Amino acid sequence: MSKYSYVSPLCMSGGDGYNSYSTNSLLQRRVLSKAKPVLVKNIRELMINLNFPTYIKVADLGCSSGQNTFLAMSEIINTINVFCQQRNQNPPEIDCCLNDLPNNDFNTTFKFIQFFNEKNITSKESYFVSGVPGSFYSRLFPRRSLYFVHSSYGLHWLSKVPEGLEKSKMSVYITNSSPLSTYKAYLNQFQRDFATFLKLRSEEMVSNGRMVLTFIGRSTIDNPLHRDCCHFWTLLSKSLRDLVVERVL
Amino acid sequence: MSKYSYVSPLCMSGGDGYNSYSTNSLLQRRVLSKAKPVLVKNIRELMINLNFPTYIKVADLGCSSGQNTFLAMSEIINTINVFCQQRNQNPPEIDCCLNDLPNNDFNTTFKFIQFFNEKNITSKESYFVSGVPGSFYSRLFPRRSLYFVHSSYGLHWLSKVPEGLEKSKMSVYITNSSPLSTYKAYLNQFQRDFATFLKLRSEEMVSNGRMVLTFIGRSTIDNPLHRDCCHFWTLLSKSLRDLVVERVL
Repeated sequence: MSKYSYVSPLCMSGGDGYNSYSTNSLLQRRVLSKAKPVLVKNIRELMINLNFPTYIKVADLGCSSGQNTFLAMSEIINTINVFCQQRNQNPPEIDCCLNDLPNNDFNTTFKFIQFFNEKNITSKESYFVSGVPGSFYSRLFPRRSLYFVHSSYGLHWLSKVPEGLEKSKMSVYITNSSPLSTYKAYLNQFQRDFATFLKLRSEEMVSNGRMVLTFIGRSTIDNPLHRDCCHFWTLLSKSLRDLVVERVL
Repeated sequence: MSKYSYVSPLCMSGGDGYNSYSTNSLLQRRVLSKAKPVLVKNIRELMINLNFPTYIKVADLGCSSGQNTFLAMSEIINTINVFCQQRNQNPPEIDCCLNDLPNNDFNTTFKFIQFFNEKNITSKESYFVSGVPGSFYSRLFPRRSLYFVHSSYGLHWLSKVPEGLEKSKMSVYITNSSPLSTYKAYLNQFQRDFATFLKLRSEEMVSNGRMVLTFIGRSTIDNPLHRDCCHFWTLLSKSLRDLVVERVL
């Protein structure tokens, strides 16, 4: 599916047990909730710009597994239906495409469809859920087919280890003690990946379609090695290194 | 997804271990191979009738999990591409939708995508695989969106236990000793389910689309309780009953 070999082993912890992503994604849920006003505004504008179409294809890129997956989709469907009602228009049929890497636990995601249906009971016949396995750094959809693209807390995952850092075994990301060259290598990789992402989506989207992308940023560009930016990653790198030394990992 | 409560617990044995469906589906593979000429003929006629479209959406209903899933899709993609080459036409972008019940092991299916890609390497950029969880006795796709529907060895699965047989604990299907009323109850249920299936697909398909449906039939209608029709089911029913008596099941 992708020329990026690095992406295949990556996935969130599956299932819905104690250590699963599904049970440990409160932060991601908060992010969804904070971005909600932007999501709602963009969907309404999309509906107006496209003159209330009879069909809409929506994609959530990097959906992961668990209940959060359906939070965004639920919001999108409800916003469309409520807005159509307000404007006295027929609601469209909605294709809901849930995308993540092929190793993602789609089985767990699909198990939650039932709850999703119960929440959206009023429009049961008008939306169609599918899972799309593949990297969003490759083409995932036919040309000019997507009306709305949503991606929350996924775009900070790069397609591969930045060039020159393949053999670095001391950290998993930029840490307080990283040289500036490490920071630049990550920046370069992100810029390349994000450019690829935008190019591919521009092929897949209809004209006047919309995207809402939520991802981590920095409040300062003055000091990329500032504590706020990488303290967490420093701790994580150290912990992982300790586990390797103790042969637990 | 469906008003048919019976469908949710049904699925093939997942994974790719010794007892999995994936490892034990040679019969289904033979059926695919026997039906191949019909598949190829219909796809060619579809391409001609639709004047070699630039986009085609194909669905495999009841795809199950494992390598067989991709056998049919592989055949469809190759037939389209080879035929376009022969007729000097540009090949279309192909949406490949793999459908089965939500409890189906889509994770295992998606793991085989890599092999599928390797087989179809020539047209890597032009097809897009998705999993569509849901019963084919409910709407699965938007109106007038499907160009080609394929279903192999799936339509003998009914949506529920036939009326009047809900409390029958002696057999899992018609056996040699079943009364004619049991046979009629199964026939009625099949006729209802198949009518539902056709009605739903007629809503989902584009005009001049095609379907290739392969399912089990009887060579004689004179004696529905003939040995050929139900000997296997008699043995299976007896074995299951023995396991229940021995408290293994």
